[in-house]
Amino acid sequence: MAEPIEPEAVYADDGEALPADLRAAFDAYERALAVDDLAALDAAFAPGPGTIRADGTGVLVGHDAISRFRGSRGGVAPRVIERLEARRLAPQTWLLVATSRYAAGGTGVQTQVWQRVTTGSADTDAGRWVITAAHVTPRAQAFDRSIWRTVGDPLYQGAWEGPLAGLTVAVKDLFAIRGYRIGAGNPTWLEQSRPETTSAPAVADLLRAGASLRGIARTDELAYSVAGANAHYGTPPNGAVPGALPGGSSSGPASAVATGQADVALATDTAGSIRVPASYQGLWGLRTTHGLVPRQGLLPLAQSFDTVGWLTRDGATLERVVAAALGADGDPDLDGGAGPDGAASLPWHLAIPREVLAVAEPGTAAALAALVARLRGVDDAPAVEEVDIGDLAAYAEPFRVVQAAEAWRNHGAWVTANPGALGAPVAHRMQQASTVTAAQEAAAREELALRREHLRAVVTDRVLLMPTVPGPAPSRATSGGDGAAAAADDLRVRTLRTTTPASAAGLPSISVPLVRVTGASGAPAPVGLCLTAASGSDLALVQLARRLADLLGP
Amino acid sequence: MAEPIEPEAVYADDGEALPADLRAAFDAYERALAVDDLAALDAAFAPGPGTIRADGTGVLVGHDAISRFRGSRGGVAPRVIERLEARRLAPQTWLLVATSRYAAGGTGVQTQVWQRVTTGSADTDAGRWVITAAHVTPRAQAFDRSIWRTVGDPLYQGAWEGPLAGLTVAVKDLFAIRGYRIGAGNPTWLEQSRPETTSAPAVADLLRAGASLRGIARTDELAYSVAGANAHYGTPPNGAVPGALPGGSSSGPASAVATGQADVALATDTAGSIRVPASYQGLWGLRTTHGLVPRQGLLPLAQSFDTVGWLTRDGATLERVVAAALGADGDPDLDGGAGPDGAASLPWHLAIPREVLAVAEPGTAAALAALVARLRGVDDAPAVEEVDIGDLAAYAEPFRVVQAAEAWRNHGAWVTANPGALGAPVAHRMQQASTVTAAQEAAAREELALRREHLRAVVTDRVLLMPTVPGPAPSRATSGGDGAAAAADDLRVRTLRTTTPASAAGLPSISVPLVRVTGASGAPAPVGLCLTAASGSDLALVQLARRLADLLGP
Repeated sequence: MAEPIEPEAVYADDGEALPADLRAAFDAYERALAVDDLAALDAAFAPGPGTIRADGTGVLVGHDAISRFRGSRGGVAPRVIERLEARRLAPQTWLLVATSRYAAGGTGVQTQVWQRVTTGSADTDAGRWVITAAHVTPRAQAFDRSIWRTVGDPLYQGAWEGPLAGLTVAVKDLFAIRGYRIGAGNPTWLEQSRPETTSAPAVADLLRAGASLRGIARTDELAYSVAGANAHYGTPPNGAVPGALPGGSSSGPASAVATGQADVALATDTAGSIRVPASYQGLWGLRTTHGLVPRQGLLPLAQSFDTVGWLTRDGATLERVVAAALGADGDPDLDGGAGPDGAASLPWHLAIPREVLAVAEPGTAAALAALVARLRGVDDAPAVEEVDIGDLAAYAEPFRVVQAAEAWRNHGAWVTANPGALGAPVAHRMQQASTVTAAQEAAAREELALRREHLRAVVTDRVLLMPTVPGPAPSRATSGGDGAAAAADDLRVRTLRTTTPASAAGLPSISVPLVRVTGASGAPAPVGLCLTAASGSDLALVQLARRLADLLGP
Repeated sequence: MAEPIEPEAVYADDGEALPADLRAAFDAYERALAVDDLAALDAAFAPGPGTIRADGTGVLVGHDAISRFRGSRGGVAPRVIERLEARRLAPQTWLLVATSRYAAGGTGVQTQVWQRVTTGSADTDAGRWVITAAHVTPRAQAFDRSIWRTVGDPLYQGAWEGPLAGLTVAVKDLFAIRGYRIGAGNPTWLEQSRPETTSAPAVADLLRAGASLRGIARTDELAYSVAGANAHYGTPPNGAVPGALPGGSSSGPASAVATGQADVALATDTAGSIRVPASYQGLWGLRTTHGLVPRQGLLPLAQSFDTVGWLTRDGATLERVVAAALGADGDPDLDGGAGPDGAASLPWHLAIPREVLAVAEPGTAAALAALVARLRGVDDAPAVEEVDIGDLAAYAEPFRVVQAAEAWRNHGAWVTANPGALGAPVAHRMQQASTVTAAQEAAAREELALRREHLRAVVTDRVLLMPTVPGPAPSRATSGGDGAAAAADDLRVRTLRTTTPASAAGLPSISVPLVRVTGASGAPAPVGLCLTAASGSDLALVQLARRLADLLGP
């Protein structure tokens, strides 16, 4: 792997020669990158909270945050240093700007500040050279394959005029697009699929309204996860929190919107697959009333709960999309938000479920409490109370059983015929799904029907307000390791307990980026607040969310 | 445009506060970026040859190189500084790492070294803060739309086995790909086109041999240019020389390969459209014998000269592609390079046309002379002599007339029906093409036939060796301005005089990145050497080029 490092030019503009021991430290760092020697890489970066590492996904501050990131990344592709520019900034401080040429084509650039330090037990009297700041640009990829499968300028042109003209859409890889295959986040699935002959209505409606397709974006495999990781194509970046998980299963479309690569995500939400990535990445995300948006041309996971929805960076765009997609323009039954069984306008009355607060992280609960306190001082604020919705496990457990039964009916034959095709977490979930008995499913459906009626009654005269998920996006690094796996499982359980009541009741639910807490890396991170309202009130719910956001100001 | 700059956190790790005048200088620089105030931006960067600016396309060194780049770039999209990390490196030296959030979504990072200097006439006694080094990562784009129109992972899967398995192809947007439209580098053309029902043989042959399509890459409009600029989609980056033109008309596929975003470019060469970008970007590029590769499914420019060919980063890959695409495997007539009227093996005897040397830049001619001198000291070197091929204008002028007549027959009706659809340079060329008379065309064809026979006789017992183009890739900045326009025209004339003899004679011609000269920015830049041989000797010519490259060593 490690090839000889023979840069073209080394000089300092004040005539000072690059110190030999610094050159040796630079070369050793480059060799450590080539073989992903984590101990050597950790040692090369200055200890302490002030060390900086920046790249296109954001800035990490502090040796520990940089070290955690590195552990989750893997090594650097084979490359040689093609050019090295060196500038002495102070007697013990140098700036090195190195251009790399990769064996597989392309170039990268790394800027490093090296300083000689004498802190740390392993140092000699003369000290050693360490990196106190680095800015890295890896070689260009044609596109980020963790976010996208196929992308175009545009991939599919919409109508030249319409309410959504100018907006670009990232389509979750579960929807039919004429001429393209459905990949479902799995390469074996993709290989076996055939080009679609008709676009899904959810796609066609956006095109007819003037939006264009930017591309087909990744999903967790078969949408059967809320983590946002994918064993085959990599984990999309979190557009708001460097080094954090993006949330799933609508991971690719959400990351595309959060990073500015598309304006709208067309996605699905069964157990939280729109709301979780919206919360993790600071987006607006709407899960629609179950059955409101046609699901033809959509690969199912669990039909009793599968819904179509959208994510955007701001509320105004989301309202435009929802109004256009629900055909509200000029339709008196829908305009203003009245749906099949919804009200013409929603109650200006928010209720926080105590059971959800109980599984939220302390920082999230505190942020919500602070927001409620701020609301009290605002004119025209909604009434806010607390409410009991019942034991969350009483929603989540029967939901899990019915979802599993339907997922196995949809995909069990394929899973059985393609052993080894799924990544471990989803394969494990499918294996569990295969064990659900008809009696278990029937009992779970009965329990769910009771929960559904109960929650629908709760939202007849109020709108639920809760944290979308228990806390900010977890670090990608916690998705590996033993204790980390247990922590990830616990987080998954608490997350699903928070998101499944709305899923179980088929209610519309919107995540709005209204608060920020301290994230896994110590930097601020968004947490969504979720508003859940009566069935069919989807557009009114978006409008209510915007009203609330406006009250709270920027 | 300029929004208030209110970063989240400003601190220095040694407790030193960020100096107010440095903060002011940083804010002023950010405002100057927003409005593209070139004078202010120039002033913000330290004068002199040591100043550094790095981004994903490479490193610019020296205030003047940075200034030229900036003049050709345009402003920065609206954004606000979201976070600013500051570190004092020395009493008058600070490192600033700023994260920007763009109004249209996404984040960027800029690392800057600011130093207080007292040089320069406008300085006060206390000096002023200037940037001595910067590393910039702009917000992520879904993909580089100057390189690609549509891209996928893969866009089109080839056969799972075959001699080209594992290779990814960038297809110039002139070839039919089943299910996709042809765009020809022009948005009006794209809008009016319909999805193709059959892939071009040149595409299908690569797929059958196991290569996959990475995407559809940009071309100069209707392939009627060798500059590599496009008025609608931007100018692709030069993968070898930051800030330089990529060369065209196969600009997108060539940049895709040079930047490592694809392994193979499937392209066309009429007057030099493969050889010019190969030379500018340090690639291997073969223009095939006219008529050897079927042109079905290829949008024509001038059928008497249009040829299909490929670009790669190395000779071994090019030979694999040529062998597979020409069906050489097991075909005794083609294996080893014998074509319709070629020889089984080419003469190991190179001849340098004196007329081409005369239009080459001095640095290029010197580099070729040095290479010839090196060859003299090498075992098994080819014989090298100089040769006369006749006045270059006698090739270029009738070539231009016939090319124009055919281009107008192909596209005149479309150009007339779509006024304003073409960018100015290609529109101007088409306007000139419309004035060619039948008598002029007939006379030009007669002249060309004589030239063709003459050059074919020259290569019966030798292989021509010449600079592919007069010099290294010109700076992108020279494509604007008045005197610059005249210089660009002159360069175009000299370039076409160098490339058209092979085109006029229908001969195979390969550009190989064998020498480097001092480029427009002062940094080393590749120039291709072109080998031109007997008709049908295509594969043997690639093998001869590899033999020559091997002799000369890395």
